[in-house]
Amino acid sequence: MFDPLEKLKEFIRHPSISADPAFKAGMAGARDFVAELLGSIGFKVEVVTTKLHPVVLAERGGDATWPHVIIYGHYDVQPADPLTLWKSEPFEPEVRHDRLYGRGAADNKGPLMTHVAAVARLLERRPDLPLRITFMIEGEEEMGSPSFLPFLEEQKARLGKADFVFLSDTGSPREDQIVITCGLRGLVLFDVVATGAKSDLHSGLHGGVLRNPIQALAELCASLHSPDGRVNVPGFYDDVLDVEPWERAELAKLGQSEEEYREFLGIPAFHAAAGYTPFEATRFLPTLEFNGIGGGYQGEGTKTVIPSKAFVKISCRLVPNQNPARIRDLLYRTVRARMPKDVTFEIVDQHEGTPYVVVPPDRSNTPADQSPVLAAAFRSAHRAIAEVFGKEPLYLREGGSVPIIADIKRVLGLDSVLMGLFLPEDNLHAPNESFNLKVMEKGMLASEKILESLAASGAMRT
Amino acid sequence: MFDPLEKLKEFIRHPSISADPAFKAGMAGARDFVAELLGSIGFKVEVVTTKLHPVVLAERGGDATWPHVIIYGHYDVQPADPLTLWKSEPFEPEVRHDRLYGRGAADNKGPLMTHVAAVARLLERRPDLPLRITFMIEGEEEMGSPSFLPFLEEQKARLGKADFVFLSDTGSPREDQIVITCGLRGLVLFDVVATGAKSDLHSGLHGGVLRNPIQALAELCASLHSPDGRVNVPGFYDDVLDVEPWERAELAKLGQSEEEYREFLGIPAFHAAAGYTPFEATRFLPTLEFNGIGGGYQGEGTKTVIPSKAFVKISCRLVPNQNPARIRDLLYRTVRARMPKDVTFEIVDQHEGTPYVVVPPDRSNTPADQSPVLAAAFRSAHRAIAEVFGKEPLYLREGGSVPIIADIKRVLGLDSVLMGLFLPEDNLHAPNESFNLKVMEKGMLASEKILESLAASGAMRT
Repeated sequence: MFDPLEKLKEFIRHPSISADPAFKAGMAGARDFVAELLGSIGFKVEVVTTKLHPVVLAERGGDATWPHVIIYGHYDVQPADPLTLWKSEPFEPEVRHDRLYGRGAADNKGPLMTHVAAVARLLERRPDLPLRITFMIEGEEEMGSPSFLPFLEEQKARLGKADFVFLSDTGSPREDQIVITCGLRGLVLFDVVATGAKSDLHSGLHGGVLRNPIQALAELCASLHSPDGRVNVPGFYDDVLDVEPWERAELAKLGQSEEEYREFLGIPAFHAAAGYTPFEATRFLPTLEFNGIGGGYQGEGTKTVIPSKAFVKISCRLVPNQNPARIRDLLYRTVRARMPKDVTFEIVDQHEGTPYVVVPPDRSNTPADQSPVLAAAFRSAHRAIAEVFGKEPLYLREGGSVPIIADIKRVLGLDSVLMGLFLPEDNLHAPNESFNLKVMEKGMLASEKILESLAASGAMRT
Repeated sequence: MFDPLEKLKEFIRHPSISADPAFKAGMAGARDFVAELLGSIGFKVEVVTTKLHPVVLAERGGDATWPHVIIYGHYDVQPADPLTLWKSEPFEPEVRHDRLYGRGAADNKGPLMTHVAAVARLLERRPDLPLRITFMIEGEEEMGSPSFLPFLEEQKARLGKADFVFLSDTGSPREDQIVITCGLRGLVLFDVVATGAKSDLHSGLHGGVLRNPIQALAELCASLHSPDGRVNVPGFYDDVLDVEPWERAELAKLGQSEEEYREFLGIPAFHAAAGYTPFEATRFLPTLEFNGIGGGYQGEGTKTVIPSKAFVKISCRLVPNQNPARIRDLLYRTVRARMPKDVTFEIVDQHEGTPYVVVPPDRSNTPADQSPVLAAAFRSAHRAIAEVFGKEPLYLREGGSVPIIADIKRVLGLDSVLMGLFLPEDNLHAPNESFNLKVMEKGMLASEKILESLAASGAMRT
């Protein structure tokens, strides 16, 4: 059995920034590292090429009656800048106060290593374990996984026969309170670019004659929410499902006060949709946000110009049962209907992602029709987490989006068990990213127990 | 006698962007250039320091009974960005199709050079000319002339004894139709900076919980106009005077069709205040414009962030009888009343300027009590322009602002004769600014004739 911490350090030393072509060697290094590691613990490894970064697939086969779990992870990381804000080198891992610092430590190399080590230890102890395991480790997660959907389509026949996906690429609020994420919001993104005059104009010579494109966009943007905090786009909420009582009850156990959350954000007051607490609003409701706006003079002082162009970048988070294509259509109709006729405008498509929800067993009064293996996996996870971390897990939806989870569901028909292993203080996507080594240790134990107990459950695909 | 075009090129090569401290050397270069040029044609030059950019004063004295004209200009220019839209380098002047391209070519280096060359030629021919001339050339016009008012106060005793100010820092509609500008709009500028959370937030994890500062600003901006195109700020129009019939009559002679103007701007339709033609709206009405807006992600693609901060830069143009301080007060009250309480915001003062109007002789039925020298100057200008350009000048107000004109009136008690030398196609404050060299040639001739005929008029201060 290898030393998980030393192996994780080795993994982090490969600067695998997928979005930056300058880090091609780091990507190859991290990929080879993962492939070799999985080979060394007895897996049959295949590196599947895609249009961009290959996916590492590693299999432990077995009897067709054994449960089959796919463990997902990604070997790529976010860029490390701004480098000046790091206390230690981002790609030279360093342990300080029970935390391992380095880019990718928490997202996702640490959690992935947690599962690899758990599997290694389990199989060393139980070489006969009646469980089929496939590691599926991609290299484009931090750039929106452009090759992952084609990969899934291509591998559908093979991977679709598995029972479920197990992964740790979501968060938990505290080290003693693990969350099993059972819902993720979807996404629709687009830009609106408004054009007034054919070039920037002197605001004195021509001011008062035409509609400024900034004004046109401000009027559009101001129309997109109602004073009660809801999105003001006809039909936007049509497909939003009522929140089930068990979900509200689960959320109530989160144990963070609104005042704590308000102070964490540093805002004078919340502005959530009427009738929802901030904790509910961010998980149960769709949103429309302005991610960027720009036009005209951006510098110090003044420039008395009427800009020719202005843009706004809009994203919507969607909740389960909302369809990104339908929402995109509603949004575009609304923009077209509301933009004034005295400016021209263009809508620029950006990407999208489908929302995802899974109902864990023993929670809802209206339980979903679930495969016995998935139900057994949830129950195994519940017991193992309660035992190892000392507290039962919470089942919460998360406001963020991991579009590949919905893609896996759609293409392979598989649900996911998302065991949240990173914490708010891990600084994901930010300088001084770190992974809590106590969480890693407990996570390994929990993962090992989950897989062992799932194998022991004898649950079979129906 | 120097070559005016070569000298103008030399002048433009000094990148004298007053608003940007990085261009300190360009400012000094332009200033030294002007001082030397005026010295070379026999003027006694003085560089008067101010808190920021010095003013070049150059005098040709003479008998106290001679008319005394102050010729105003500015040696500073607007920033040149966006640089990518320039066809030639902004500070490497280039002649194409009878136009000289470069930042400041029209605003104001070209027109200023026109007068310097006219004076040089005139004095070479008539060294005994009975006319006192003072050049007063500042370096802060494009940043709102913050030092100019203190400068005027300081130089009041000396400059206040002149008879009037002559300048070309306004426009004319066509190269054969010169306008003598007899009214200028005032200005009030300010920024609003809105802050939501204390740092940028992940729009998935926190979206739907707080008011995005972009949304807050969009809602504010959208509230500042009514659908009829008027500014929606209580009290904004209270002090706006009715337009005199002679002014409407003069404007009717402009001879540009709305369709031509619309095509020039390149807009699908006008959006002027109800009841006003575009030509009237830009001259007779106050405005509120958004000169810049920014916040969040500005790059290609997407970044799903809720920005911590967003800003908008607002300017109002004011018409005669509106008081900038009162309008500023109304605006700030409105912003404070309308900004939501769930974001914080700051109003950042920028500069302001008082509107100006002068009634030329022989126009209004209610002629103003005017000095004989000013009246003689107007009449000289009328004749010279008619002769050189082939058409009588029009007397129009302009939508732009030259706040120092109102300051000169207030502090020195002097009116201005504003001979408009730049044309709509000159692209002031925009990429590919240029100056029409035929206008420059005729402008020199007209300026020379105006000054010579004024000297010959024998008009004296009463």
